[in-house]
Amino acid sequence: MSDSSPYTHADAHRRRRGALAELLQTAELDALLVTDLRNIRYLTGFTGSNAALLVHASGDDATVFCTDGRYTTQAASEVPDLTTVVDRGSALALARRAACDPARYGRTGFESQYVSVEEHAGLDEAAGDFELRRSPGLVERLRMVKDELEIDALRRACAAADQALAGLLADGGLRPGRSEREVARDLESRMLDHGSEGPAFPSIVAAGAHSAIPHHRPTGAVLAAGDLVKLDFGATVDGYHSDMTRTVVLGRPAAWQQEIHDLVLEAQRSGVAAAVPGAGTAAVDAASRDVIAGAGRGDEFLHGLGHGVGLEVHEAPSLAKTGAGTLAAGMAVTVEPGVYVAGRGGVRIEDTLIVRESAPELLTLSTKELVVV
Amino acid sequence: MSDSSPYTHADAHRRRRGALAELLQTAELDALLVTDLRNIRYLTGFTGSNAALLVHASGDDATVFCTDGRYTTQAASEVPDLTTVVDRGSALALARRAACDPARYGRTGFESQYVSVEEHAGLDEAAGDFELRRSPGLVERLRMVKDELEIDALRRACAAADQALAGLLADGGLRPGRSEREVARDLESRMLDHGSEGPAFPSIVAAGAHSAIPHHRPTGAVLAAGDLVKLDFGATVDGYHSDMTRTVVLGRPAAWQQEIHDLVLEAQRSGVAAAVPGAGTAAVDAASRDVIAGAGRGDEFLHGLGHGVGLEVHEAPSLAKTGAGTLAAGMAVTVEPGVYVAGRGGVRIEDTLIVRESAPELLTLSTKELVVV
Repeated sequence: MSDSSPYTHADAHRRRRGALAELLQTAELDALLVTDLRNIRYLTGFTGSNAALLVHASGDDATVFCTDGRYTTQAASEVPDLTTVVDRGSALALARRAACDPARYGRTGFESQYVSVEEHAGLDEAAGDFELRRSPGLVERLRMVKDELEIDALRRACAAADQALAGLLADGGLRPGRSEREVARDLESRMLDHGSEGPAFPSIVAAGAHSAIPHHRPTGAVLAAGDLVKLDFGATVDGYHSDMTRTVVLGRPAAWQQEIHDLVLEAQRSGVAAAVPGAGTAAVDAASRDVIAGAGRGDEFLHGLGHGVGLEVHEAPSLAKTGAGTLAAGMAVTVEPGVYVAGRGGVRIEDTLIVRESAPELLTLSTKELVVV
Repeated sequence: MSDSSPYTHADAHRRRRGALAELLQTAELDALLVTDLRNIRYLTGFTGSNAALLVHASGDDATVFCTDGRYTTQAASEVPDLTTVVDRGSALALARRAACDPARYGRTGFESQYVSVEEHAGLDEAAGDFELRRSPGLVERLRMVKDELEIDALRRACAAADQALAGLLADGGLRPGRSEREVARDLESRMLDHGSEGPAFPSIVAAGAHSAIPHHRPTGAVLAAGDLVKLDFGATVDGYHSDMTRTVVLGRPAAWQQEIHDLVLEAQRSGVAAAVPGAGTAAVDAASRDVIAGAGRGDEFLHGLGHGVGLEVHEAPSLAKTGAGTLAAGMAVTVEPGVYVAGRGGVRIEDTLIVRESAPELLTLSTKELVVV
């Protein structure tokens, strides 16, 4: 948390629960049984591995947190402001509690996008006659728009990735003869040096023809002079993920390499510029994709333009051709067009940014010009 | 795969599907819709991130694999021996396929322990009148007993952890002044050097009083002379996990440290000796726990004795007080008793082993005597 933050983590969690309570009222629910650990972390700050949270639409006084005995101390420290029940079968315990007070919890939803059919059968049994309602995606809807504490964590995660890349380049970490795997490990190690809790996802390092494979996994293949090298990687800070791609070239770029890099960069900038409040997600995708299609390379852009990023590295909203949503200020998304020339090489350029009223705020700040190593 | 393996990976996958087909016949199912990616990897070798598999009880001729267009090439190479459908909505596509041929797929199960309530609603809609049956845990039942290819991967994962620890000790990596986090990172880096694909789980390094916390996460706290240091870590090889704990002491051990280490070691050896085919899992737990309870420290052994390990770091069977299962030859389990003296320190000693007809085969081979650093 930066010194300039206007409120504490406890404030932020309380506000988020308040926003969820409002959403529950709109959805005509008395309560929501939250079982996804990321959503619980978002709403309470709890970072343990077993918990459930029954959020009541009337607010914190009727909201109950549950974890098991291993986490009694941790819960007291991380979740001091909610009634806490200690019970190993956390979701079951809260379902039983709701079932015992139908006047208060008669219309209780559950996270049906995560709860398995077997877990649901268990909840149903615990709740007796009481029926939990399918209520997918409520917390995720809130999570799309980040508050300043979340943006601060994202900013630090992006900075760790920027610094890792700068150090890698400065130390000659992209020299011919190194393997993709060595480079990936070096990047991940440098991100740890800069405060990352661990890679946001398995890093992609793709050299030469491998760079034409959108989600190539690093191999023992070695970097060679003349290669495009695509680096797609991210850090994790306070549970928040960064996601950035840069493509460099080892030695003087060939004309085709410079051409597709220029094209992708133009498309990327066009996508970034379109990421404003009120823009349809499909329109943002189109703003970038049209640049590539206009150059006759639409068939070589093999994936969507981007995705939300936060407590998950891929979360809502999705920026894609078929997307139906609309951007709002405070959303954190990636913009990552690519052109992949099968068998030869590819370029992807990706930023993580915050949608702002004025102009998008880039959190990944490494240069997007073609870096010649 | 070691040179002495009697069959290839393709053979192993075919055998595993054959065993599942037999299990389906016993369960009176025509087919099983497998959607868990670990189970799909187990049955086919596929390592991509989107797939589904419809395994028919009559065998491979009626079994269908499905993935999306990103993985066409990879599927052709990893799953050459099964009919492959390319469709982005892999599980939905196979559910529709089953629904179109009720004579053949009338009784089709699904992995209800993983499929969410929302995903199930989608499958139900895709399948129309056709009803998929809740069939949890069938592949997991097979996965409990490892074949020699799996044991070979586990052996290499355990060796990577053994070698990392040996190197750490030899290079003075446990010297006073280093932080828990530095030591964890060093261990993980050394495991990568020895062939690990990544940590099997977030490594535990717990120094001094922290060693009394069973699942402590490494902090910036520094190792100090006189500390017990508990190291619980593992590697991943070909998707298989290792899991090992050793507790060392920095400097001449105090009497209480030596005493609890001796006790835990005796309990650990007793547990290992009890891990034979036919033994009840609760009896194996008791064989170890009774040693600790007999010394009046039963209340300081805060968890179960162990767990199965394989494509997941925690899988069936569980070795615990309340376990109902029975061990069989070929099962891979951990044996990891501990004594935790709150506020002072704790000792845990853990091996990964294979249950064998003769005697348990230890895969983690680092010394279990108290190492004085």
